[in-house]
Amino acid sequence: MPRSPLPDELKAFLAEPNPSVIATLTADGKPHSAATWYLWDGGRVLVNMAATRKRLANMRRDPNVSLTVLGRDEWYRQVTLRGRVTEIADDDALEGIDRLARHYTGQPYARRQDPRVNAWIEVDSWYGWYGGAPWTGS
Amino acid sequence: MPRSPLPDELKAFLAEPNPSVIATLTADGKPHSAATWYLWDGGRVLVNMAATRKRLANMRRDPNVSLTVLGRDEWYRQVTLRGRVTEIADDDALEGIDRLARHYTGQPYARRQDPRVNAWIEVDSWYGWYGGAPWTGS
Repeated sequence: MPRSPLPDELKAFLAEPNPSVIATLTADGKPHSAATWYLWDGGRVLVNMAATRKRLANMRRDPNVSLTVLGRDEWYRQVTLRGRVTEIADDDALEGIDRLARHYTGQPYARRQDPRVNAWIEVDSWYGWYGGAPWTGS
Repeated sequence: MPRSPLPDELKAFLAEPNPSVIATLTADGKPHSAATWYLWDGGRVLVNMAATRKRLANMRRDPNVSLTVLGRDEWYRQVTLRGRVTEIADDDALEGIDRLARHYTGQPYARRQDPRVNAWIEVDSWYGWYGGAPWTGS
């Protein structure tokens, strides 16, 4: 699992509005996973959650996460980023969730009543997989 | 996160050849995630890996897993199953991977030279999410 910078080809893939699943750890040390929007944000990854989400409590307690991003049209193409949540901040103006919603839907986020929180992930290591073989990009 | 049996509507969803991501724990207690084929197998979940896969070593050391299944056409529909790997067995005749390959591709598995392993997951708890709200099915 390389610790080197991501190749441009994989960065381009991560910049697409792809499905993804984020894994965190629960208080009893077991894995938890959930589908999530993510945004490749200049080297870090932004995710955003309603303030009540279990995975947010998990991240506050243990910052280690693993994010698997699947190709929209062919999910045999995947990139997994492993790293740590290094910043968590209330999304009072809903700027974070609006960035994500515009990226995925082209529109601002519809449900504006619930408090939301941004979390930024620093990537420690990654791997790619495509067509049954490692995808190391170019 | 209910521990009750899965509703039929969610079982029907899980019976489709949907994309999924499985989360396991590495030796240093951090989450690891990877896209995977899965098969809803009469209450248990079958996954299958090349014998060299990192997540197989993870499962042998710590059986706790979390599997998030996404809708093929709309990944805002998701079901997450949390549980334990209770059986691991060499897939010598490639029966397990062939079941999975037929389910997902309609064909037996193409690459037949590499040793593979079956793992069955018992589900301890689950949650569903659909259109921004919990999906509890019927």
